[in-house]
Amino acid sequence: MSGEKFKAISAADFFYKNKEIAGFDNPVRATYTIMRELVENALDACEQYSILPEVRVKLIDEGNSIYKLKVEDNGIGVPYEQVPYAFAQILFGSKYTLRQSRGIFGLGGKMAILYGQITAHSTVRVTSSTGGFEKYSYELNINIQENRPVIRRKEVGPNPGRWRGTTVQFSFEGDYVRAKPKVVEYFKQTSILLPYANILFVDPDGVLYRFDRVTDVMPKPAEEVQPHPHGIDVEGVQRMINASRSSTMLDFMANNFHRVGVATALNFLKSIKIDPQANPKTLQSRELLTVVSRMKEYDEFQPPDAQCLSPIGMELLKAGIMREFRPEFVAVTQRGASAYSGYPFIVEAAIAYGGEIPITPPDEMSVFRYANKIPLLYDLHSDVAMKVIKKINWQRYRLDLSTMPIAFFIHICATKVPYKTVGKEYIADRPEVEYEIEWALKTCAREVKMHLTRKEKASIVQRRLTVFEKYLPLISRFATELAGAQNQPNVEKVLKRLQIHAKEVEQRSSLQAE
Amino acid sequence: MSGEKFKAISAADFFYKNKEIAGFDNPVRATYTIMRELVENALDACEQYSILPEVRVKLIDEGNSIYKLKVEDNGIGVPYEQVPYAFAQILFGSKYTLRQSRGIFGLGGKMAILYGQITAHSTVRVTSSTGGFEKYSYELNINIQENRPVIRRKEVGPNPGRWRGTTVQFSFEGDYVRAKPKVVEYFKQTSILLPYANILFVDPDGVLYRFDRVTDVMPKPAEEVQPHPHGIDVEGVQRMINASRSSTMLDFMANNFHRVGVATALNFLKSIKIDPQANPKTLQSRELLTVVSRMKEYDEFQPPDAQCLSPIGMELLKAGIMREFRPEFVAVTQRGASAYSGYPFIVEAAIAYGGEIPITPPDEMSVFRYANKIPLLYDLHSDVAMKVIKKINWQRYRLDLSTMPIAFFIHICATKVPYKTVGKEYIADRPEVEYEIEWALKTCAREVKMHLTRKEKASIVQRRLTVFEKYLPLISRFATELAGAQNQPNVEKVLKRLQIHAKEVEQRSSLQAE
Repeated sequence: MSGEKFKAISAADFFYKNKEIAGFDNPVRATYTIMRELVENALDACEQYSILPEVRVKLIDEGNSIYKLKVEDNGIGVPYEQVPYAFAQILFGSKYTLRQSRGIFGLGGKMAILYGQITAHSTVRVTSSTGGFEKYSYELNINIQENRPVIRRKEVGPNPGRWRGTTVQFSFEGDYVRAKPKVVEYFKQTSILLPYANILFVDPDGVLYRFDRVTDVMPKPAEEVQPHPHGIDVEGVQRMINASRSSTMLDFMANNFHRVGVATALNFLKSIKIDPQANPKTLQSRELLTVVSRMKEYDEFQPPDAQCLSPIGMELLKAGIMREFRPEFVAVTQRGASAYSGYPFIVEAAIAYGGEIPITPPDEMSVFRYANKIPLLYDLHSDVAMKVIKKINWQRYRLDLSTMPIAFFIHICATKVPYKTVGKEYIADRPEVEYEIEWALKTCAREVKMHLTRKEKASIVQRRLTVFEKYLPLISRFATELAGAQNQPNVEKVLKRLQIHAKEVEQRSSLQAE
Repeated sequence: MSGEKFKAISAADFFYKNKEIAGFDNPVRATYTIMRELVENALDACEQYSILPEVRVKLIDEGNSIYKLKVEDNGIGVPYEQVPYAFAQILFGSKYTLRQSRGIFGLGGKMAILYGQITAHSTVRVTSSTGGFEKYSYELNINIQENRPVIRRKEVGPNPGRWRGTTVQFSFEGDYVRAKPKVVEYFKQTSILLPYANILFVDPDGVLYRFDRVTDVMPKPAEEVQPHPHGIDVEGVQRMINASRSSTMLDFMANNFHRVGVATALNFLKSIKIDPQANPKTLQSRELLTVVSRMKEYDEFQPPDAQCLSPIGMELLKAGIMREFRPEFVAVTQRGASAYSGYPFIVEAAIAYGGEIPITPPDEMSVFRYANKIPLLYDLHSDVAMKVIKKINWQRYRLDLSTMPIAFFIHICATKVPYKTVGKEYIADRPEVEYEIEWALKTCAREVKMHLTRKEKASIVQRRLTVFEKYLPLISRFATELAGAQNQPNVEKVLKRLQIHAKEVEQRSSLQAE
């Protein structure tokens, strides 16, 4: 009576059947997601090779809610033979290595192309060159059921100007009219973090949005790193053992983990009573489990090296916020590097107060979230940042979120961001991440509190001064008359001292506000 | 200078590297997800074959935050040769057909097992039988990099009792102490919708949670259906054409779509000026695009047939709510079947008022969400239901969510639920789904409004009555005296009539409250 039909499906087929989980819930959302995914790939192709990004995006309305998208970058370019796979095979890409990049799934760009294929029956045209003597153009489809590229047309031509970069073009069914606010917001928030990029967007109404480069200084590109021993799992270690040529645990430990040298490895192995000369390949399941679980707890390991990450930096973050919101005061902080499941990450955060920052109802708080420089514009309420904000007792910092003009800024950069959805809407509440965000915000909160206290103190002193200025002269006069004395004592000296003091307090409080 | 390393990864590897998107963000969440996924598979194995479910779940604390989970069902059983794939190969399963079931990804159960493997280095033991003379046991691992099952041990034994069902057992690293509230809530909310199931859960502290069957009546199992023409995409139609043996469009249309017969097909093809005798395989890309886009708009197609779905039914839903919350009033409604992207779905909703329903702050509203009988306990604020609730102008229904005791219940059953995450936390805002939920809630809201109006009216009449009862006798006495008359007019008759009227109004309003 077993009526069950069993079958296997391809990864492409899985994501085709479940496009929602990649951010393709509806035409509006799809429009936003498609544009974002392609812009991110374009930026990654530049930044990871220290190329000052020149990204041009054009969206054309072709009628019947079909849009043609064209994205051009001056990035590293895709090698000739890789193009079909890089653009028309799901789960194939360059983003599976351990380093900070916007994309991580090797999925977004292809999902966009797949969506164009299933809604507008569109092929994708890719033109690319790595800057050699040739440039090449492909016209591709995805065979979804088998998850393999179908080459409709290909052409190789000369590249006299030694042009280097990639151009992607395809059509899809969307709704730009309703997606517009998010799309524009996306470009705006992106540009805040990328003052070194030229980004150009021409929308279907011909409106031109341009964000011009204001500096040629770029954060150094993120490097690839080995996993950090804190929080790596059994599968990971097992794979390393299978892959490694080390014949001793000592050698294995010292060569495969981020920030673990011979000395550290030796101490660690001793501490868990595993023979440094033992052959990793002959490790028992029980032993392996011990090694891994003890690795997580062992606190003699160096913390992960921030060198492999490229955070925005406090200066740039503060500048961006100041430019956008002209707050009365902003506190910025950058946490040291930490790690979850062996992935190093850094949390940068800021709290801005006053100025052009609005007072918001509790369910529409001003929280700006970035992950590896991507602005996250959806699903705030499911994000770990929101969880932390709700958790913190703000009274302790004399902050009242519902009556004060406050905005939060959180940027997490990581070799792998623990996104909750393939659509990269929000970040999962990994305990390690939660902890870092909490302390980042608390640090900022403390500064804001200090600023407010100073402000208050200054105004008290000022009030006191006014009182003195008003009554001291009178008092001295009456006192003189009562005493029947002739010449009044001079109160100026006293007042001067008070005035100077007031100035000092004043300055000290305003000082921080710059 | 192209330093890009390109490579492909397996589906298993993808989900291993991105477990967050499957609901494995942290030990607490993982514990909840693992138990839920396995219970759902157990229930599906019963309900889809009209077997009254007997599900036993046992969780044992093995120390060092390692737990052993054992789930037993009396379902259809997994065929001998399918076991390794059904439990140790990602994206292989019986859930890719078009019918209502809890699981849809063919992923959850395997992710749970995979998580056990990577955190506790555990194998999975599966014992199953389809009720034949044999029962068989497997001990399995997943080769994650290649996404294929590894059989560690297998045994075939006699099955004298002709036992039928499946037992799954494995260990994982978790945190039951903190997951407990959600886990227990999950069992409770599940049992509300499954009065015909026996569910037993023994937790690590030995506490026994049992939910006993109160009826042998089961909703008829969901049937498999063809896609509905409204909203199917180009890829889908292309696949059908490739798969079909039809040599004419007419034949193709009439044999491959839900609720489309020869007559309808003929009218449709005429309306879009496509020759019914044309061969589908020779259709031009442009033509195909027209067919599909017009299919979406054509309103002569019959709406999808609810027969393929198995909703809870208004009675059962109301009963469940009444049992749990004893509200003063509850309005229940079931929408007709609709479809998104060719997937039929039905929305059932209820609004309960008063009784034991609490008054909640706006950001903790009482919203109970179910999808294909699965309670959704996470990420309310990202769910389409919440979007709709925020959108509706409740004043129009004289409802104030922040001051009135109101709870919302939304159940969507579909051949495919548009989950936003693989972890099945919440539902994407497909326009069609949003529309149905909105109208379901508005229908309920109207009833609640009527109830409140009646209640108010009743109390007004009552107040008026009291006034009359108090003053009418006096008035008549004074009037008599003033008139100097002897015998007072009898006001009893008038009062009687008023009292009767009040009773009627009273009854009419309380009537609905039952």
